Amino acid sequence: TIAIIFYSLIRLFHPSVDKGPKGKGHPINPSIRKECPKVVDVLDVEDLNKEKVSYCRCWKSKKFPLCDGSHNAHNEETGDNVGPVVIRKKIN
Amino acid sequence: TIAIIFYSLIRLFHPSVDKGPKGKGHPINPSIRKECPKVVDVLDVEDLNKEKVSYCRCWKSKKFPLCDGSHNAHNEETGDNVGPVVIRKKIN
Ligand code: FES
Ligand code: FES
Repeated sequence: TIAIIFYSLIRLFHPSVDKGPKGKGHPINPSIRKECPKVVDVLDVEDLNKEKVSYCRCWKSKKFPLCDGSHNAHNEETGDNVGPVVIRKKIN
Repeated sequence: TIAIIFYSLIRLFHPSVDKGPKGKGHPINPSIRKECPKVVDVLDVEDLNKEKVSYCRCWKSKKFPLCDGSHNAHNEETGDNVGPVVIRKKIN
């Protein structure tokens, strides 16, 4: 019983699970290029040959940096409301 | 004492704080347009009048949807490695 109380109290006050109800203090990228200190992607608009391209901001896309719709599952599972940034270009 | 044990056990097994160590299962947007079911931003490259614009993917920017460098504090605080997507355009 003492052990259970101790374990519960440790979990209760441990910083990694006690940073607030909104995800503040948690990493948001579970898997993408974790060997990189900072994941930055660059798009030159001159190279864009489509009318529209969506960039992922939920960090769950299997086509990262592009959006593959995975934000919908993320939003449903977590109650979040994230989505991509869409870059549009007029193609003649 | 019983009350403390109960509270600790509730915290311990509550889904919102027990979804794994990597942020999986947590919302990643703590504050931006929470009234919106899905936050999507659109950039028309024809409207871009700068050589370079960075879009936030950490959801902590005070200039969202633009990056203001807040990803650095987020990465330090959480051990994460996120950064913006940069859109570049040649301006004559
Ligand atoms: S898949 Fe991540 S924003 Fe769409
Ligand atoms: S401030 Fe969010 S990615 Fe830079």
